[in-house]
Amino acid sequence: MNGAHTLVQSLTTNGIELCFANPGTSEMHFVAALDQAPELRCVLGLFEGVVTGAADGYARMTDQPAATLLHLGPGLANGLSNLHNARRAHSPIVNIIGDHATYHRNYDAPLTSDVEGTARPFSDWVRTSPDAASVATDAAAAISAARGLPGRIASLILPANTAWTEVTDERVRIPLAQTPVPEPISDSAVRAAAKILTAGGNSALLLNPRATREYELRLAGAIVAATGAEIIVPTHMARISRGTGRVPVRRIPYGTDHGIEMLSKYDSIILIGAKPPVAFFAYPNKPSQLFAAGTLIHELARPDQHVTDGLEALVDELSARTSEAVVTQRKRLDFPTGTPTPAKISEFLGAAIPENSIVVDESLTTGRSFLKDTEGLPPHDWILSTGGSIGYALSNSIGAAIACPDRKVVVLQSDGSGLYMPQALWTQAREGLDIVTLVFANRKYQILRNEMKSVGADFGGPKAEALMDIGDPVIDWVSLGKSFGVESSRAETMEALQEEFENALLRSGPSLIEIVL
Amino acid sequence: MNGAHTLVQSLTTNGIELCFANPGTSEMHFVAALDQAPELRCVLGLFEGVVTGAADGYARMTDQPAATLLHLGPGLANGLSNLHNARRAHSPIVNIIGDHATYHRNYDAPLTSDVEGTARPFSDWVRTSPDAASVATDAAAAISAARGLPGRIASLILPANTAWTEVTDERVRIPLAQTPVPEPISDSAVRAAAKILTAGGNSALLLNPRATREYELRLAGAIVAATGAEIIVPTHMARISRGTGRVPVRRIPYGTDHGIEMLSKYDSIILIGAKPPVAFFAYPNKPSQLFAAGTLIHELARPDQHVTDGLEALVDELSARTSEAVVTQRKRLDFPTGTPTPAKISEFLGAAIPENSIVVDESLTTGRSFLKDTEGLPPHDWILSTGGSIGYALSNSIGAAIACPDRKVVVLQSDGSGLYMPQALWTQAREGLDIVTLVFANRKYQILRNEMKSVGADFGGPKAEALMDIGDPVIDWVSLGKSFGVESSRAETMEALQEEFENALLRSGPSLIEIVL
Repeated sequence: MNGAHTLVQSLTTNGIELCFANPGTSEMHFVAALDQAPELRCVLGLFEGVVTGAADGYARMTDQPAATLLHLGPGLANGLSNLHNARRAHSPIVNIIGDHATYHRNYDAPLTSDVEGTARPFSDWVRTSPDAASVATDAAAAISAARGLPGRIASLILPANTAWTEVTDERVRIPLAQTPVPEPISDSAVRAAAKILTAGGNSALLLNPRATREYELRLAGAIVAATGAEIIVPTHMARISRGTGRVPVRRIPYGTDHGIEMLSKYDSIILIGAKPPVAFFAYPNKPSQLFAAGTLIHELARPDQHVTDGLEALVDELSARTSEAVVTQRKRLDFPTGTPTPAKISEFLGAAIPENSIVVDESLTTGRSFLKDTEGLPPHDWILSTGGSIGYALSNSIGAAIACPDRKVVVLQSDGSGLYMPQALWTQAREGLDIVTLVFANRKYQILRNEMKSVGADFGGPKAEALMDIGDPVIDWVSLGKSFGVESSRAETMEALQEEFENALLRSGPSLIEIVL
Repeated sequence: MNGAHTLVQSLTTNGIELCFANPGTSEMHFVAALDQAPELRCVLGLFEGVVTGAADGYARMTDQPAATLLHLGPGLANGLSNLHNARRAHSPIVNIIGDHATYHRNYDAPLTSDVEGTARPFSDWVRTSPDAASVATDAAAAISAARGLPGRIASLILPANTAWTEVTDERVRIPLAQTPVPEPISDSAVRAAAKILTAGGNSALLLNPRATREYELRLAGAIVAATGAEIIVPTHMARISRGTGRVPVRRIPYGTDHGIEMLSKYDSIILIGAKPPVAFFAYPNKPSQLFAAGTLIHELARPDQHVTDGLEALVDELSARTSEAVVTQRKRLDFPTGTPTPAKISEFLGAAIPENSIVVDESLTTGRSFLKDTEGLPPHDWILSTGGSIGYALSNSIGAAIACPDRKVVVLQSDGSGLYMPQALWTQAREGLDIVTLVFANRKYQILRNEMKSVGADFGGPKAEALMDIGDPVIDWVSLGKSFGVESSRAETMEALQEEFENALLRSGPSLIEIVL
């Protein structure tokens, strides 16, 4: 039994069921060892960002870490931007990163780089195994670290000789990964929250980006019913359970001015695993904090505490167990007709998205009204990019679809963002995943055109304009989707979109529909 | 005048002619300022790895840094793997990375990350400008750092408020970037080298990966003629001038055993800006160093010294100015016919590549005999991946083609590698670059299948096999190329390849030819 075998044993013993992989030479023993573990599913990505993005999507739907398998510093580097998004979503992930053999690092071979230094800015936990006998224990420690609240990125670096060196049987002990116990919610924090909520004035409960699930929202809804507070959520949620019968929330808008305006009405904000709301970007002469100076900010639960416990304690403190939460009423929109526009696409989604869907939303400027128009749909989940690193949706949808094979995944994809990692389409096809991707092709970086105005830059020169234009040459998404084995079509009318979408839902495996705007 | 204006002035004053860009909100003032500088060409990439890869290709052909424009930590992260390759090629690059406004960083907004920490493992120089008044000076310092030998990666981080804050005219002074003066070659190192070379025994001159240019090879050839030494070069050269009339070299082979065998004949190796030869990867029970224990290793020039000066001094010390170097004789192969195989493709290249081409080679397992079969072609340049991070060629070719608009660029692309950053094809089309990409589609990670045997892993399980198979579904490169606006075709016979290749050379703008193996 070599170190790679003990790694696989440690992963499976400790409940890791998925390995998203783009391996290289230094991971070959690990790849060979995978065949001893039928319970560990391996999914190949053509690019490392697909791998980490898929692990993020899997974590958003299961709250469990998947493993990733990455090759040396540059392979890890290719996966970092989606790790950034995952970290901001509080998604647990265990990265396994191969490195050169320990003794080989000294020779500065061409692929040598500082792997720990590369991992650190985007990880909560980093360790390099020193030898084969340590691998099983280090893997368990990585899984344990990933499972710590609020969900963490653990990066375990395995020099090639830790994988290939034999470990004598008496030294192999596969440790159980302990799930870290968070610090309990403080009674005084609960009492203070209850006091604020019942003292009069406008109060808001601000949930953390991962706590917007059905049960937690139901608890928050009971508090609302008992106190008149409102539930607010960050602009970008890791996943929100919404639709008919779910407790509605108010989302902090993206723009600084709109965010300030929305939050100005609150005398107090109770943080439930969330951080005080801040602007996405800084703009000249605008503040970074979105709440007014006099707002009382009270922290019921830190991000690394158990948000559900905090909400339950607060419900009990308020004797609100029987308070009936207001829930969203059913409202399906009518299918629009004619030439596609962002507004009509929004209505279309409010008519078309099926019950129990998982929506992965990277629609950016096209999707400004999507959340409003889909609110009254049957129950579904909605995923957003939490970290702002664009190009996450096609990859994220892979993990969501694998986590929930009985549900339809709908990707709402702006074209510019989708072009960061279009190779994800191939893994969708390879795994036969039920994903329908709608591509909104406005053929420009429209968000940058808006941002340029917002930052007050003196817009208008042809070079600046060209750097925000991706329409020359036109990118043919139908051809792109087909090249990766995904059924692809173009809808030039809303009627065609409806027909293509219905066909896509009936199909097994992925589809892509391009809508030119 | 704001900080962004002073940045553009500092870049253009200091000779930066190209900016490869994938900007975001925090770079909007810089983007707006670009229009004041007609002499600074801007090239958009759909992904940051395309941007950094193109800057590497540009540096390989010009020895001058281009600027890149990247958005925050995740945008930089997406560009790191090609920066790794660039660094190993000794390519000078000046990265401009936007960050949040200085005061906004404290609030930990969603896109906040440790940008300096992200840059550091892949940069030789990192600085964050503290204020607008420092930007021009910091940019000049970055350019100066990049131009230091052997060619460096400089990463300048510009918080958004350093770009948008006004700088009063009397404070704006655009400094001239000094090119750092390297430590001179030591006379004693030259004399010692001459002594070794004339003492009898087998000697080799090992050139650094960027010193394999016509003039330097001519000097090395004169030394060879005078002493009987041989010229050896690293497996992966940044660029080598080769073909008819150029001085031939012996390349250290990729495999450890072959490398050891080749180097075993040398009693001494003179390092000319190169490092002692090491194995690309470590393998169980094989050494990391490729030269025998008794080999005399003598350093004539360090990587950060002037290699040309070292060679000239050695030529003079040996009185070899008039020694006639042996040069490569013309030899064009015949065009092969029938079904494509790697051997026939190799012969084809030995028949087809036109004079003065720039070949960007990422052919991996398909290309094992390419260098041998193309040696007698008319003069041309050949570029290889120096850092081993795969997926560099499509991006690299952009920079090479922009640097040399009067030359044809031929990309030799294995399919697995080409799928890391296929978006580069779009920039090829957008800029109308004369690039012909040949895709060798064996539909597997063949190099990993070889490596798995080399590392001694117990191969054969279906999961391991699946992780090295990219043929299900088949990737349609013709469709992929067309989706990005590149003329694309598939050659099923060698005759068809010849015809398509000739058509592609006649065409203005990029072409792609898929060859299924």
